[in-house]
Amino acid sequence: MNVEAAMRSAAAQADAVKGSTYPNPPVGAVILDRDGAIAGVGATQPAGGPHAEVIALRRAGERARGGAAVVTLEPCNHHGRTPPCVDALLQQGVSRVVYSVADPNPVASGGAERLAEAGVEVEAGVLADEVAGGALREWLHRQRTGRPHVTWKFAASIDGRSAAADGSSQWITGEAARADVHRLRAAADAIVVGTGTVFADDPTLTARLPDGSLAERQPLRVVVGEREISSEARVLNDDSRTMVIRTRDPHEVVRALADRTDVLLEGGPTLAGAFLRAGVVDRILAYLAPILLGGPVTAVDDVGVANIVAAQRWRYDGVERVGADLRVSLVPG
Amino acid sequence: MNVEAAMRSAAAQADAVKGSTYPNPPVGAVILDRDGAIAGVGATQPAGGPHAEVIALRRAGERARGGAAVVTLEPCNHHGRTPPCVDALLQQGVSRVVYSVADPNPVASGGAERLAEAGVEVEAGVLADEVAGGALREWLHRQRTGRPHVTWKFAASIDGRSAAADGSSQWITGEAARADVHRLRAAADAIVVGTGTVFADDPTLTARLPDGSLAERQPLRVVVGEREISSEARVLNDDSRTMVIRTRDPHEVVRALADRTDVLLEGGPTLAGAFLRAGVVDRILAYLAPILLGGPVTAVDDVGVANIVAAQRWRYDGVERVGADLRVSLVPG
Repeated sequence: MNVEAAMRSAAAQADAVKGSTYPNPPVGAVILDRDGAIAGVGATQPAGGPHAEVIALRRAGERARGGAAVVTLEPCNHHGRTPPCVDALLQQGVSRVVYSVADPNPVASGGAERLAEAGVEVEAGVLADEVAGGALREWLHRQRTGRPHVTWKFAASIDGRSAAADGSSQWITGEAARADVHRLRAAADAIVVGTGTVFADDPTLTARLPDGSLAERQPLRVVVGEREISSEARVLNDDSRTMVIRTRDPHEVVRALADRTDVLLEGGPTLAGAFLRAGVVDRILAYLAPILLGGPVTAVDDVGVANIVAAQRWRYDGVERVGADLRVSLVPG
Repeated sequence: MNVEAAMRSAAAQADAVKGSTYPNPPVGAVILDRDGAIAGVGATQPAGGPHAEVIALRRAGERARGGAAVVTLEPCNHHGRTPPCVDALLQQGVSRVVYSVADPNPVASGGAERLAEAGVEVEAGVLADEVAGGALREWLHRQRTGRPHVTWKFAASIDGRSAAADGSSQWITGEAARADVHRLRAAADAIVVGTGTVFADDPTLTARLPDGSLAERQPLRVVVGEREISSEARVLNDDSRTMVIRTRDPHEVVRALADRTDVLLEGGPTLAGAFLRAGVVDRILAYLAPILLGGPVTAVDDVGVANIVAAQRWRYDGVERVGADLRVSLVPG
């Protein structure tokens, strides 16, 4: 197996554990033996558990010796709740370490240097854009800025409506796109909506599996706004925890979620507009259905743009078909 | 060269003449010699001129003998203003004919059968979806329905706005997308706008080359609506011809353009809504810019949908990046 294919496999391992590794980054690792065959794979375990490299090395056993470790993030070089991964890689005698993204955390970094000093062949940057935009995206953002990463997710018709004229919106997108959103939720630390969405749709805001049952991991539900919501609102049920923040200021919301990494904004047109005007959205994820709705209900209202010159400029960093729908990812341009 | 590659090359020939071949379809042809090398290429000439196969055969000369003809449309079998292409193919001694789409025109069809009877190896359907959705799309629609093909083209921000709050819209999309629209215009038979667009933007509605000069071929400009437009409106200048239709009924507009094949609807939100409600749009071509505008100006207003169940259902038949923008094609679902 070549190194790129192994990195894709490592990235898939990381995707599968995203959301469960806090405060550690979701990392994936693949150990190739001397002949380039997969000897072991692994992903970061929940806090206090072993890191991806250690899991993969354990599975590889003696086959790791003289082989290669392919890891999505630079192996760590510090004693936290677990010993440094660099030690494990050296002990098991891998002769080559390939990683995708350098560790921006000054405490944990330096792994590549130590490996090279010990005579291990080190290669960095393999599939770096793909991996940095994948499972590690939110963690890297937090490392760099000290703030949680906020994704505004919306579903709309191709003419930009989030509901029909009568307010009905179930369902704009198809099953595959909705399942995708539930995977996003299960991996997120918090889902944010406004009181308007609670009044209009009374959503449960849980992550569900395709069979309708609750996913193992549920994000914190966050309701934002000055209006009081009913104690009967579904968002307050026992399926997960809920935080109610009595403000309309997105900056206050982000501060209240300062210890989270991956925040999913699912607000309606008013709240989404407030977050966008405040400049606290780091990614837009639009699920665009091949339908037309027309009418007054747009996915976002006022984004603080008076004329075309002042348009909020983003850039596409991913466009994919999801079932019959289109999933479009944008990052600040 | 393999047959698929030759068909792509034939399709590119057809693209280049689209719009200039009325009433004939824009067809492309490639002649491969016995060794599979390109011996000649050709595309349909303006009415009365030779068809694609004849041009390609002339260029191939003696190299056509024992070779293959790769053509986007089934070679014609009737005497119009030119003799049947089937005769030319047989005379030049090609031993194999590969085409993509069968000719739905009962007068011209039967070409494949006659070739096969004459001992030529015939293969149909190569890249059929691609070719039928390409240069031949509008002509095929006309053959099947007897009506012109109407494409609603719009440019919008990712939140579905066709202008900022103050009405400014130059430019939502980038240079590459705008150049693409000018190519569409140059290949279309008519461009339709409403009086609202004339009042708001005073467009020239011409097809221009990247340097700003007029394209060789200009579509008919059509202004639809009951309000009277100023005799000073740019759409009435000498760059092309203009038809003013004093109605708001899309069916009347389509009837007035009954002898056209490729109609491009560039109307604003009101006219686009009327056409969509009337069910006379055959394709939607959306240029989606990675920007946010918010505000009241949506690309389309009322499409006659009261609730989500009644949504107009389409399906994506193409998604492409064009410069920094996204070009999304939809056909009825």
